Amino acid sequence: MLQFPEYVVPDFSREPFLSAPDASFAPAGEGYLPERFYATTIYPEYFKIGGRWRLLRRSRMDCAVVLRGGEPVAVEPRLVKPGEPVAVGRVDDGSRGVYVHADCFRQPGAEKPAAAFAFRTGRSRETSFSQDYDALYELLRHERDHGYVVWVLGPACVFDSDSRAAMAALIGRGYCDCLFAGNALATHDLEAALFHTALGQDIYTKEAAENGHYNHLHTINLVRTAGSIPAFIEKYGVSDGVMHALVREGKPFVLAGSIRDDGPLPEVIGDVYASQIAMRNEICKATTVICLATQLHTIATGNMTPAWCEAEGKIRPVYFYSVDVSEFAVNKLRDRGSMRVRGLVTNVQDFLVNVERGLR
Amino acid sequence: MLQFPEYVVPDFSREPFLSAPDASFAPAGEGYLPERFYATTIYPEYFKIGGRWRLLRRSRMDCAVVLRGGEPVAVEPRLVKPGEPVAVGRVDDGSRGVYVHADCFRQPGAEKPAAAFAFRTGRSRETSFSQDYDALYELLRHERDHGYVVWVLGPACVFDSDSRAAMAALIGRGYCDCLFAGNALATHDLEAALFHTALGQDIYTKEAAENGHYNHLHTINLVRTAGSIPAFIEKYGVSDGVMHALVREGKPFVLAGSIRDDGPLPEVIGDVYASQIAMRNEICKATTVICLATQLHTIATGNMTPAWCEAEGKIRPVYFYSVDVSEFAVNKLRDRGSMRVRGLVTNVQDFLVNVERGLR
Amino acid sequence: MLQFPEYVVPDFSREPFLSAPDASFAPAGEGYLPERFYATTIYPEYFKIGGRWRLLRRSRMDCAVVLRGGEPVAVEPRLVKPGEPVAVGRVDDGSRGVYVHADCFRQPGAEKPAAAFAFRTGRSRETSFSQDYDALYELLRHERDHGYVVWVLGPACVFDSDSRAAMAALIGRGYCDCLFAGNALATHDLEAALFHTALGQDIYTKEAAENGHYNHLHTINLVRTAGSIPAFIEKYGVSDGVMHALVREGKPFVLAGSIRDDGPLPEVIGDVYASQIAMRNEICKATTVICLATQLHTIATGNMTPAWCEAEGKIRPVYFYSVDVSEFAVNKLRDRGSMRVRGLVTNVQDFLVNVERGLR
Amino acid sequence: MLQFPEYVVPDFSREPFLSAPDASFAPAGEGYLPERFYATTIYPEYFKIGGRWRLLRRSRMDCAVVLRGGEPVAVEPRLVKPGEPVAVGRVDDGSRGVYVHADCFRQPGAEKPAAAFAFRTGRSRETSFSQDYDALYELLRHERDHGYVVWVLGPACVFDSDSRAAMAALIGRGYCDCLFAGNALATHDLEAALFHTALGQDIYTKEAAENGHYNHLHTINLVRTAGSIPAFIEKYGVSDGVMHALVREGKPFVLAGSIRDDGPLPEVIGDVYASQIAMRNEICKATTVICLATQLHTIATGNMTPAWCEAEGKIRPVYFYSVDVSEFAVNKLRDRGSMRVRGLVTNVQDFLVNVERGLR
Repeated sequence: MLQFPEYVVPDFSREPFLSAPDASFAPAGEGYLPERFYATTIYPEYFKIGGRWRLLRRSRMDCAVVLRGGEPVAVEPRLVKPGEPVAVGRVDDGSRGVYVHADCFRQPGAEKPAAAFAFRTGRSRETSFSQDYDALYELLRHERDHGYVVWVLGPACVFDSDSRAAMAALIGRGYCDCLFAGNALATHDLEAALFHTALGQDIYTKEAAENGHYNHLHTINLVRTAGSIPAFIEKYGVSDGVMHALVREGKPFVLAGSIRDDGPLPEVIGDVYASQIAMRNEICKATTVICLATQLHTIATGNMTPAWCEAEGKIRPVYFYSVDVSEFAVNKLRDRGSMRVRGLVTNVQDFLVNVERGLR
Repeated sequence: MLQFPEYVVPDFSREPFLSAPDASFAPAGEGYLPERFYATTIYPEYFKIGGRWRLLRRSRMDCAVVLRGGEPVAVEPRLVKPGEPVAVGRVDDGSRGVYVHADCFRQPGAEKPAAAFAFRTGRSRETSFSQDYDALYELLRHERDHGYVVWVLGPACVFDSDSRAAMAALIGRGYCDCLFAGNALATHDLEAALFHTALGQDIYTKEAAENGHYNHLHTINLVRTAGSIPAFIEKYGVSDGVMHALVREGKPFVLAGSIRDDGPLPEVIGDVYASQIAMRNEICKATTVICLATQLHTIATGNMTPAWCEAEGKIRPVYFYSVDVSEFAVNKLRDRGSMRVRGLVTNVQDFLVNVERGLR
Repeated sequence: MLQFPEYVVPDFSREPFLSAPDASFAPAGEGYLPERFYATTIYPEYFKIGGRWRLLRRSRMDCAVVLRGGEPVAVEPRLVKPGEPVAVGRVDDGSRGVYVHADCFRQPGAEKPAAAFAFRTGRSRETSFSQDYDALYELLRHERDHGYVVWVLGPACVFDSDSRAAMAALIGRGYCDCLFAGNALATHDLEAALFHTALGQDIYTKEAAENGHYNHLHTINLVRTAGSIPAFIEKYGVSDGVMHALVREGKPFVLAGSIRDDGPLPEVIGDVYASQIAMRNEICKATTVICLATQLHTIATGNMTPAWCEAEGKIRPVYFYSVDVSEFAVNKLRDRGSMRVRGLVTNVQDFLVNVERGLR
Repeated sequence: MLQFPEYVVPDFSREPFLSAPDASFAPAGEGYLPERFYATTIYPEYFKIGGRWRLLRRSRMDCAVVLRGGEPVAVEPRLVKPGEPVAVGRVDDGSRGVYVHADCFRQPGAEKPAAAFAFRTGRSRETSFSQDYDALYELLRHERDHGYVVWVLGPACVFDSDSRAAMAALIGRGYCDCLFAGNALATHDLEAALFHTALGQDIYTKEAAENGHYNHLHTINLVRTAGSIPAFIEKYGVSDGVMHALVREGKPFVLAGSIRDDGPLPEVIGDVYASQIAMRNEICKATTVICLATQLHTIATGNMTPAWCEAEGKIRPVYFYSVDVSEFAVNKLRDRGSMRVRGLVTNVQDFLVNVERGLR
């Protein structure tokens, strides 16, 4: 039986919390923060306001904390309005009204946080991953009914027929609540639905189609003609792939535009900061995040994902997986200290095929 | 003495050019192209219009060809206006009014294109790079006076004090006409100017500054307070680094936003398609492009860079370098067939230090 | 149904074979070959001797060809005896009595060698591997009854409990006829049998055992005390793992020593050239070779594996797989031109678990 | 001015040293050690023998400690003779007669071991290396006159003309006291001297020589004909490259054979355990070790290199550098805990060219 570590509720009836002053706030400027602004972390954070310790909800790293309606709110600095009161000061041990609760989870029935060490060390191709797979299967079975799983996919996930089918099956069976990707993933997934190719190369036989470089441009043009991905899927009778599964299951997706895009597809968001907002709105619900073979989206998502969430009325950890064939990519988030990340060093094709089989 | 390969001007007085019909055009829809639209390549392309063969100027790969004022113009599909005449048909051997001149350069004084093979094979850590460095030094000496060199930099270029200084020196000595980068490069370069750190870590001693994760957030806030990078540089007396060198030398830069950005800095362009336009406006002038340790920007730039340019009244090759510590990144552009790329597999720190020394 | 490409028997009744002279031979010196010695390739090679074209059996690349008892024999240069007649001359088109039959296989029912292209291009993390897995399953089912499969394993194959169990199961079900490895693989496999660790780290939980660095030294010492791996297995009741499966099934293994060895285990061969001989004796029987996560052993094995073999009275291809998480390692053999290699870029843990499941 | 950290001499007049019993010894068996044998570390180790604490000289990791002539001696287990007294017990805090002095160096004029943290964390392509280069230049200038520098080179070091010349120049200027390599490095270096190729490809232009695969086989044959590398160098008037520089300067080299060797060259040692002995005899003198692009030799050398040495009558650290383009390779030694390694993630070509320039 899956057991999450227990949240340790801080005892604010003790010092230094008890006699700490309220957190300090200063007004924002036009597009900038006050000097010595406080920046948020991935941990639960409490602010003393009007003598009461308040948990900062919907947090994310590197935000300003703004007082809105008496509540502390984590706001990206560029979204803070001129004159809003912004938390200032960088002492976070509770003595000045701000408390970062870094060591907030306790393993049930255990004194020492056993797994801590293993997850903090670097992952390499030679790390043993059997337990990580088993733990992930157990976790996803739980999340299907009780959590919110965000998948973050690089285009390579649909360059191979088996992994594309595996991801579609996982969506179909309820293991994906939301998808983050870019224009390329959606384009090549739909190209595969029409032509069985990605970038003009067959996703099973690897044969290059004649004039195959037109396949993705043609696909994009057809989707733009149809007006939207769902309209395209219906018009052309698309019946397989990742985008089809999402549309059929009614699951949301965020397609963030990038400077390498052709097209783009109609649903792709051109403004990266609008993409950030759309992504964060989903991440605020996330209980598990799984990032595959996309360094940019992984870092972007990691930056906005706190180490904790509220689910079923409780505070529990957010689980964050990063899977890539390169140690550098897998360990990058970890090195930035932005997350407790469980990294797997492998080809995402195999990862997806494994996970789909392991959940049958 | 540097000698460029000679451009072979097609002889349009011969068949199949002579009796070929004009290129065909069909009207665009609302946001989409006509069926069987023609898509551009990286090579010189000629379109027969009114019985005359016209070179498509300011080209880039994967564009539509639109007739504007009687001239063929390469236009990104999303920028084609409803009703505009768009070239259609995918025969490109000249017999139908469209000619892709793929084999357009001839080595001076040589029958066989000697270097062709070597540049087409994959590059690895075990490839010999001495000649590539020597050729690059010779090329850059030429370009300083006669060309337009665009550098495309990942943030790691400023994570190290020597490579940051080397890049600034190259700008100062006239070897950089334009910079493409993202918010991170500019932010960490300015962070280094203020704090001698990148992401809070000293760029020489590697020591972590206390509360160092604030350094880049603080830097961003100060630049936003100042209103622009030049205003910040002046206000805080910044006197070193890449951004300072660009501003001092009056060189343009394009900072393309991405979903992983904090901030952003004022000059960063939030809309990725606006970034593409800004980048392409510079690439249309480029004679040499050098991409360092940034997969996303390298692919984006590669996609919009043709294999040829017009400089000093002649058609000559564009030289495109991709430098990364990973074979996968270096070879990725090449595999997509989008460019004749000269790849170097190494750490960009050493590359920059080497190039700066080699050009003394 | 698996169909091998057909061997095209050369027609020696035609020119230039018919009027070609016999191959030339010159005597070897003391430890060296005559000037202009001929060196073997990975392809079938024929030598005209006494007016008859003779196939060089048990071939391998980069050998000398020595006449022994009237037969051409491929001999490593260091093993040629002083005075033996060694083939000389480097014309290999048949006109001088030596014929390299490079284009020797024809796909059944097809004119064009369809798969050739795909297997010659580089493999990357973004290559589609579904078909490679399917083809491998079909091949291994055939080989179990009709072939001879040599596995070449790096130590990481036993660093993970699932992959170690998968490999043992493959041996138990008849999919492995011989194992090549080094001291480390055998040591850590036996360490896992005793302590459930590899290099002191649990192969499932990743927990570091107390004083765990002793585990492998202790294991080696116990095996040396027992006198052999089989004796150790019996004495300590070992009942799982790769070495146990090999011993139980009576399958041969070659453990080649290297300069990084502790110990070594009793069966490890200290002299690398004796290891080469032991390996080549097995490779001469091989119909399929599968190399996992070991660059040194993969290159060594690749160098001695021809592109063809004789099995069931016919000449057919040898299939050679190289699996590694690094493109560089996977593509290295291919770049040296030494083999037609099918590369998969992935973590060998997943590869082994996949293959074991795919063959159930 | 270069200052080494100071060695902290243990105070054996205090507890627990004072009342500790002598270290325990038990007799070895035939080819194996007694139960609970003690295994050495990379740190200074002291054994109480006859009431006196004795430093284990010429140490290396994972050895047995044998009493020979009253002195503790670090002996590879396979070299312990039957009946010799071997240290037993695994308590190493001094209380049982064995003391591992792990924290033995103190930075001069500093309380905290400042550099410790930076060197213990993983190195990546994004680590700042400027200081590492500067420190290495300073160190090598010292070592030229006062130390013993062992270079460990993979074959890629001579695949490029500039890096091959840089290494030869470093040898010529006194910065290399001994070379470890394999058959391939020496072969391709001598091939380059004869043909200006490595594996048949020009080391400057990258052009493939006709029949170029013969170049290295031919080179090997000529060296074997000449009888030795020095004889070959003289006979063929070789005047450049790494091997030539070593022979001219009279510097020793150890060429360890491996299973991938062609040839081998006459000086190559076929027995890997004989190679280990030859290497360790040199490592016992080493004050600095620099390993470039060779995972096998780097690990082998790392395993036998202690963290300390005696030079100029003092105990000082051994400095160990590992340079490779792959993070995995660079960090591998560190992960095994076998050494304090300074890793640089870059192409060794650039590293060698940089170091040669930096030392001019």
